[in-house]
Amino acid sequence: MGSTPDWRALAASKRESVAAKIPAEWRLPSSFTSQFTPTSRISVLDVPRKSGLLTDRELELTDNYDATALVELMVAGKATSYEVTTAFCKRAAIAQQVINCCTEIMFDEALVRAKDCDEFLKTKGRPMGKFHGLPISLKDSFNVKGVQSTVCYVSFINNPPVTQNAVLVDILLGEGAVMYCKTNIPQTMMTADSDNNVFGRTLNPTNLSLTAGGSTGGEGALLKFRGSVLGCGTDIAGSIRLPAICNGIFGFKPTAQRIPFARNTPPGRLGSPSTIYPVIGPEAHSIRDMQLFLKTVIDNDPWELDENVIAVPWRTLTPLSRPIRLGLIMEDPSFPLHPPLQRTMQSATTAIKEASHTIVSISATDIPSIYDAAALAWKFFLLDPQKTAVKYIQASGEPWVPSIPTVRFPQNDGWEPSLDNLFDMNVERAKIRKAFHDIVVEKKLDAILMPGYQATAVPHDTFGVPVYTVLPNLLDYPAASLPYLKADTELDKDFVRTNVTYTPPYTPEAIDGAPCSIQLVGKPMKDEELLQIIETVGEILKLSSD
Amino acid sequence: MGSTPDWRALAASKRESVAAKIPAEWRLPSSFTSQFTPTSRISVLDVPRKSGLLTDRELELTDNYDATALVELMVAGKATSYEVTTAFCKRAAIAQQVINCCTEIMFDEALVRAKDCDEFLKTKGRPMGKFHGLPISLKDSFNVKGVQSTVCYVSFINNPPVTQNAVLVDILLGEGAVMYCKTNIPQTMMTADSDNNVFGRTLNPTNLSLTAGGSTGGEGALLKFRGSVLGCGTDIAGSIRLPAICNGIFGFKPTAQRIPFARNTPPGRLGSPSTIYPVIGPEAHSIRDMQLFLKTVIDNDPWELDENVIAVPWRTLTPLSRPIRLGLIMEDPSFPLHPPLQRTMQSATTAIKEASHTIVSISATDIPSIYDAAALAWKFFLLDPQKTAVKYIQASGEPWVPSIPTVRFPQNDGWEPSLDNLFDMNVERAKIRKAFHDIVVEKKLDAILMPGYQATAVPHDTFGVPVYTVLPNLLDYPAASLPYLKADTELDKDFVRTNVTYTPPYTPEAIDGAPCSIQLVGKPMKDEELLQIIETVGEILKLSSD
Repeated sequence: MGSTPDWRALAASKRESVAAKIPAEWRLPSSFTSQFTPTSRISVLDVPRKSGLLTDRELELTDNYDATALVELMVAGKATSYEVTTAFCKRAAIAQQVINCCTEIMFDEALVRAKDCDEFLKTKGRPMGKFHGLPISLKDSFNVKGVQSTVCYVSFINNPPVTQNAVLVDILLGEGAVMYCKTNIPQTMMTADSDNNVFGRTLNPTNLSLTAGGSTGGEGALLKFRGSVLGCGTDIAGSIRLPAICNGIFGFKPTAQRIPFARNTPPGRLGSPSTIYPVIGPEAHSIRDMQLFLKTVIDNDPWELDENVIAVPWRTLTPLSRPIRLGLIMEDPSFPLHPPLQRTMQSATTAIKEASHTIVSISATDIPSIYDAAALAWKFFLLDPQKTAVKYIQASGEPWVPSIPTVRFPQNDGWEPSLDNLFDMNVERAKIRKAFHDIVVEKKLDAILMPGYQATAVPHDTFGVPVYTVLPNLLDYPAASLPYLKADTELDKDFVRTNVTYTPPYTPEAIDGAPCSIQLVGKPMKDEELLQIIETVGEILKLSSD
Repeated sequence: MGSTPDWRALAASKRESVAAKIPAEWRLPSSFTSQFTPTSRISVLDVPRKSGLLTDRELELTDNYDATALVELMVAGKATSYEVTTAFCKRAAIAQQVINCCTEIMFDEALVRAKDCDEFLKTKGRPMGKFHGLPISLKDSFNVKGVQSTVCYVSFINNPPVTQNAVLVDILLGEGAVMYCKTNIPQTMMTADSDNNVFGRTLNPTNLSLTAGGSTGGEGALLKFRGSVLGCGTDIAGSIRLPAICNGIFGFKPTAQRIPFARNTPPGRLGSPSTIYPVIGPEAHSIRDMQLFLKTVIDNDPWELDENVIAVPWRTLTPLSRPIRLGLIMEDPSFPLHPPLQRTMQSATTAIKEASHTIVSISATDIPSIYDAAALAWKFFLLDPQKTAVKYIQASGEPWVPSIPTVRFPQNDGWEPSLDNLFDMNVERAKIRKAFHDIVVEKKLDAILMPGYQATAVPHDTFGVPVYTVLPNLLDYPAASLPYLKADTELDKDFVRTNVTYTPPYTPEAIDGAPCSIQLVGKPMKDEELLQIIETVGEILKLSSD
C-alpha cells in the first residue's frame, strides 16, 4: 500500500500535539510512568497522591465530592471554579500520562472559562446555572467548537476543527459548565476496548491489565481516576454502561431521544434506518449526579435546539412510599455469570428482599433469548451497504485494532444487509419488544435487575460481545450500570461452577479486586421512575464508586 | 387469468352479507335510492329527515349534539344509550344506502351493548367512562373481535373474523363506547378516493359527484351525514384530514405513537423501516370532541397495552392569556390554491389578525419545497421490495381502482427502493425536518396555518397527490383540518387567477357549496398546545361542521 508509514506518522503527530498541551510542570518523569503497562496488574488509583503534583487542596477537591457537592461548594463561595478546574485539569493530565484516557486537551481554554464563571458569580451574585463552574469531560465524539472530532480515525486527523458545539455542549455551557478535555474511544466505537491507532489504548486504573471498557472508555477510566467528576457518553449497545461496569462507577443510558444528540460526530454513515438510536447519558460518581445531569438537560427544552428530541418535560415525582417490584434476570444461558458476578447478583437480590421489596424471578424460558436479541441488534448496526466505517479505516491504511474481530456473532457471519431483510428484522425486533413489555406489564414491575456483563472488567481484547447491555438498547428501555462489590478470589470460590463454560475465561487471579456491578432497566420514557428505583436500591446496597 | 368471475362473486357475496345486516324496516326503496349516483351533484344531507325512517327524537339526537353533549345527556339520564345507539344505527343504515360508507355492520351487537351501558349506569349509579353509551364508528382497518378486517381487499374476504380488538377499541369500550359499524376506505389506503372492489365507492353527502376523501373516507362521509358523531381514523399522508376536508368536518392527526396503533390490520407489509408512522386520530363534529378523544385515550396509559406508544401523559394546560403567533404558508407553487381556498385562507388570516393575534408570513422560498417533500414521503411508502399490497391485489385478480394511477409523483417513476437510497432518503428527510423546525423556533410560532388541500372536494378520481397534508406526516408534527367557509361561485370569482395552472382543474359549477377548510400544524408532542390554538382560532372563525 505504501501508506503505512504515513498513517503512523500522522497518528504520532496528533498524539504529540495533544501531549504538548500538558504543561511541563504537570508532567511525570518517564522513569515513573514506564511502570504503567497494559500487562501490569497494579492499581494506579493512588498515583495522583503519590505523584506529588497535586496540592492537598487539589486532592481534597478532586477526591471527596460528587458534581452536586462541588457545584454547591462553588456557589457557596467555598471554592472557585478556577481552583476546581485547575485541580481537575492537573489530575486529568496525570491520568493521561498513566492510563492514556484523553484525546483532546483544552486546559488553557478551561482555565479562562473558569475565571469567567467566577467573575459571573462575583459580579451578578448568582451562579451561571446548575453546573456553575464545574469541569465536565466529554467523549471524543462530542463536537466542541475550535477542537477536532477525529473520533479516533487516522483518516480524520487532517479534518479541520469543528465550527459548532454539540447541542449538549451548548446546554452544559449555558448551565455554567467548563469543558476541559475529550476522552478516548475504540476504533469505530463498536468494541468494548477503548483502543485505536490514533491515541492508543486506555488502561483500567484499578488494574492496568484489564480493559477500561468502551466505547466511552476514556471517560470511565478518567472518572474512576477522579480526573473527572462527571462525564458525557453515548450508548448504542452499552457504551456508557460498559465503562461504568469495567471501572466501577455509575452510568445511565436514558430512553432514546430525550437528550439531544445533534452535532456529535458519527463514526459511520448518517441516515441509518435502524431505530436503535445512539443515546447520550452521564458517567458519574453518584446517583444524584445522574439525576442532576438528566433533569438539567431536559429542563432546557432541548427540542428547541435539536428537532430529533422528543419534546417531553422532565417530571418531578413524589417520593416512593411503597415497596418496589423488581424483575430478576439472573443470567442468559449463553453467557453464564462469572463467580464474582453471581455473588454480586445474589447479594443484591438478598439485600433488596430483606428490605421488604419484591423480587420476581424471570427465568430464561420466560423471555426471548438475550443472546439472540443481541445478535439481532448487531445486524442493525451493520446495515450500511457502503460500510462507511470500513472506508474511514481504509482511507488511511491503518489496521484494525485487535479487539474488533472478537466482537462477533457467528450466526451473523456472511450476512449481508438488504432492505428486504430489514423488514424481517423489524418484525423480529417488534416480537422481542412485545415479549419484554408484556412481562413488565403482567408482573407489574418497576424495573428489571440484571447483570450488565457476565464478568468484571476482563483482560484487554477479551471482552467479546455485550449481550446484557445491548438488550435495553434493542428495547429502548432506560438502563443504568451501578457499582456494587468487588471480585474477591476467596469469596468467589463458592460460586465457581464446573457445569458451565465461562466466556471469556474466568481467571480469578487476573481480576481480583476488580469492581463488580448490577444493571437496572426501567420502562421507556420513565427515566424519572428508574432513577427513583435506583435511589431506593442505592440506599439498600450502599452503592458507591469508591 | 380465469379468476375474474371469482373475485366479482366473492365481492358481491361480501356486500350482500353486509347489506343483510340492515333490518328490513330500515331499508329505503330502490326507487328512492336510484337517484343517488356518483355523477349527481345533489346534496343528500336532508335524506335522513325526508326518508321518514327516523322519529323526531332520533333526528333530534343525531342532528343536534356533539359527542361531548351526547355523553352528558346520557350520563344525566336525559337519553339512554339504547335510544342514542338506535338513532345512529338507523341513520348509518340510511347513509349506507345513500352514500355507501360502511363496510361492517354491527347494529345487533351495538344494541345489546347499549343496553348493558344503560344497565350499568342504572345499577351502579355512575357512567362506564368518558364515552358512556356513545356509538363510535371505526375505519375498516380497526380490528373488532368477531368481525372481519378485510381492509377492502377481495383476497381478504375469506379471512376469518379477527379474534382480538384493536387496542384502541379496547380502550374505547373500557370508557363505555358502543361499536356499531366500520367504514369504507380506498383500495390499498393510498389514494384519496374511498373506492375499492369489495364495497365500491363512498360518495360525498354534500355533493354526490365529489370524492368523500380518503383513506378514512367512509368515516368522513358518515360523520357529515350525521350517521356518526365521532369516528376513528388513521393517517400517514392525510387519511384523517383529507376526508375532513372533503366533507367539512374536523380531523386531527396527533404526533405519532401517542395513540396506540396495535392490532389494526395493515394494508401492506409489517416491519417497514420508514419512520413516517401511521397515526390514529379522530374525525369529529367539534374541537372539544377531538380533545375528549385524545385526552381520554392517553389518560388510559396506552403504553401498558401497546409497547409502541410513547409513554407520556396528557398535559392539562393553563388557559392561553396571550396573543398567539401563527406562521402562514399560503401555498406551494406547484399546487396553487383554487379560488375558494384562496378566499378561505385570506379570510381566516384577516380575521385572526383582527383578533389581535400575530400572523408571520412564510414564503415558499423560506422553506423546502412542499411538493418535493411530498415526493420524498411517497418513497417511504413504497419501500417494500416485495410489494406486498400489490400481491394482495393480484391474489384475487381484482383490478386497480381508477384513482390509483393518479396518485403519482413523476420524479419517482422508475425508482426502486434500496437500503442504500434509504440512508440518503433519511438524510434528506432530516434536512427538511431541520428546516421547518428552525423556522418554527426562530419565528417563535405556536403553529402553522396552511391549506390542507389546494381545493375543496373534487370530482371522483381527480384528487391527485395530497402534498399539503403529507408534510406534517413527514415532519411528525400534529395537524388538524378544520372546516371553514364554503365554495361560492360568486364570491370566488374575484380570486380566479389566470397566471397559474389549477391542478386538478377548477370547475366552479362542479363544487359550488362544497366545504372549504384550513389546516393548523403544531409542534411535535405538543398536541395539547395545538388543540389550545385550534380552540382560539375556532372561536375567532366560529368553526363548525354544519
